[in-house]
Amino acid sequence: MTDPSVQPAITFGPRVRKSPFFSATRRYGCKAYSVYNHTYMPLYYESPEADFWRLVRDVTLWDVACQRQVEITGPDATRFTQLLTPRNLSNCAVGQCKYLLIADEDGGIVNDPVLLRLAEDRFWLSLSDSDVLLWAKGVARHAGLDVSLREPDVSPLQVQGPKSAALMRDLFGAWIDELRYFWCRETELDGIPLVVSRTGWSSERGYEVYLSDGAQGDRLWEMIMAAGRPHDIAPGAPSGIRRIEGAMLSYGADMTLAENPFELGFGRLVDLDMDADYIGKAALRRIAAEGAARRLVGLEIGGPPLSAGNEEPWPLRAGSAAVGRLTSCVHSPRLEKNIGLAIVAVAHAEEGGRLEVETPGGALEATVVPTPFYDPKKTLAAG
Amino acid sequence: MTDPSVQPAITFGPRVRKSPFFSATRRYGCKAYSVYNHTYMPLYYESPEADFWRLVRDVTLWDVACQRQVEITGPDATRFTQLLTPRNLSNCAVGQCKYLLIADEDGGIVNDPVLLRLAEDRFWLSLSDSDVLLWAKGVARHAGLDVSLREPDVSPLQVQGPKSAALMRDLFGAWIDELRYFWCRETELDGIPLVVSRTGWSSERGYEVYLSDGAQGDRLWEMIMAAGRPHDIAPGAPSGIRRIEGAMLSYGADMTLAENPFELGFGRLVDLDMDADYIGKAALRRIAAEGAARRLVGLEIGGPPLSAGNEEPWPLRAGSAAVGRLTSCVHSPRLEKNIGLAIVAVAHAEEGGRLEVETPGGALEATVVPTPFYDPKKTLAAG
Repeated sequence: MTDPSVQPAITFGPRVRKSPFFSATRRYGCKAYSVYNHTYMPLYYESPEADFWRLVRDVTLWDVACQRQVEITGPDATRFTQLLTPRNLSNCAVGQCKYLLIADEDGGIVNDPVLLRLAEDRFWLSLSDSDVLLWAKGVARHAGLDVSLREPDVSPLQVQGPKSAALMRDLFGAWIDELRYFWCRETELDGIPLVVSRTGWSSERGYEVYLSDGAQGDRLWEMIMAAGRPHDIAPGAPSGIRRIEGAMLSYGADMTLAENPFELGFGRLVDLDMDADYIGKAALRRIAAEGAARRLVGLEIGGPPLSAGNEEPWPLRAGSAAVGRLTSCVHSPRLEKNIGLAIVAVAHAEEGGRLEVETPGGALEATVVPTPFYDPKKTLAAG
Repeated sequence: MTDPSVQPAITFGPRVRKSPFFSATRRYGCKAYSVYNHTYMPLYYESPEADFWRLVRDVTLWDVACQRQVEITGPDATRFTQLLTPRNLSNCAVGQCKYLLIADEDGGIVNDPVLLRLAEDRFWLSLSDSDVLLWAKGVARHAGLDVSLREPDVSPLQVQGPKSAALMRDLFGAWIDELRYFWCRETELDGIPLVVSRTGWSSERGYEVYLSDGAQGDRLWEMIMAAGRPHDIAPGAPSGIRRIEGAMLSYGADMTLAENPFELGFGRLVDLDMDADYIGKAALRRIAAEGAARRLVGLEIGGPPLSAGNEEPWPLRAGSAAVGRLTSCVHSPRLEKNIGLAIVAVAHAEEGGRLEVETPGGALEATVVPTPFYDPKKTLAAG
């Protein structure tokens, strides 16, 4: 029997894919990894807290090659892409990006990718952690639409933080200032083929740089690092602290196939009235008519700092009644509070409601509060 | 910059699922984990080598709850299950298991599960690492068949090693001796609902125990451990050494969506002539007619012990020509050799052929050899 507080290792093997930036992340001292879309994903360098402060004060470079892409091309690419999502794409211009949900027949969430429209008939879905290529291929089998589906050799980096705009201008030139929120552009850097978008998963100013030639990963990483030095760049990774402050959801934790868009407050991503068909339409109409039984809410949680967050969903109680689960939580060193996201029965979803969180260390008091927990510029409203 | 030889940690969070046996694996001192089907998967306890010797000499208990199940039920369950696989299921009796491949339209491999037929119209696919639930749901959308698809609350353990039969007899009784290779039976243990099958991923004598009530995970683990003590049981995990000795393939490493069954020597799992339709039939007929361009082979590799195996596919050369890739390798302490699996151009697949493996530490000589590398009883022939 061994001390379970000793942190086990991750072992690197050929079953899980390495990002084109993997060697760089090892060289720069990444201390912990997970696996995302069958690909190693860096989690932090100095520490989750130290990385957070670099993200919100300076600029950070993240290997998120694990955000694999599904490319949809062919004469029916537009119709097929619309078939996959309840979001109305009729106003999605070439060069535009859209955050959207992919739902199954029951309205359950298969994935929450960012869509990039690169041409009239060429789309990328930049994925969270599920095999959307298999889903899309399965759907396409009998859909009667002329499309090609594949995972291209495309690996995103994120350049996130308040100094990201200055860094990106140094690298790419003045057009970066004209790149609007949730728009993208195909470009290159010293011959390396790229797409740059003004998107990201930080709630800070930021960009994504999609590398279209995996062999150039190390060179691209070092070019961005070199250009970033005057801007105090640091290696980083998706920040659990910052994304919960911004109430950005994490697929697998805060939403799964068992949740629907209305439970998550994503009604704006569902068009119940459009003529075009999409998967889940009938179920989502029914759910909208009946009203969702649960709702995602923000919680402030008492007790000592929950710096390590929750290892698994924690049950929520109101008195003796089970009313839901805490899906993600963390201690925000900026807010000096424990904050979290939870899915609770609607009767307990009102602001100011008091709940109890059952943690492995005992019960903690929690209060339902509005989200985002921190959002000086309301950058989340658009997209 | 940090020393890349320091092994990074895995961090446990709510985005990745924990097995019902997770606490037990921590308590028993599991030292390394990976992620498989969005679930933490234990990799080794004492060391990969020490665990291997326990597996081949005694009996070991593995948490493989990451082998998630897709349950197929409903009036058209049989037809739908056949639609998913090129293996002819017409002779699959209730109570029987079949190792099979799931192919896409191009004949590429989506997954290589073990099928359990639990009733006329109730099947489980016990999965390797890809989201077959999404694939199956996508296919079902327009297939015109009346089926229900879900991931049930089912979590397998493997009890593997030469002493497994004696342990299982102690636990379940004399019927264990009558359970044939690749057959299964629904049963219970002190009220815990289970399915027991004579299957496994070790190339040793072994069983799988499918727990149908996640809340009972810790109790089941400890019951098996207690019964196993007289048989020298140890906690274990899928053994890279033993499975390569037995030439068992690992999905993600030795086969992906980019390989077809004929390249892997799995012609016996493809029925090109049956009347029933299945996905990939036309492509597989074409590939069979043309002949596969590549073939999976075994390699003996020179040089010092490759105890850590390969972190990623290693390129293979014949002279100056690129001829394929080494997909998995390991040092077998029993054979006192480096052994590996590789996918090579058919011109270089003949036994005795000499190749060069490009490792990060330099080139190594390799020879094409027959597989399995170790198989005293030819236990792999059935199933």
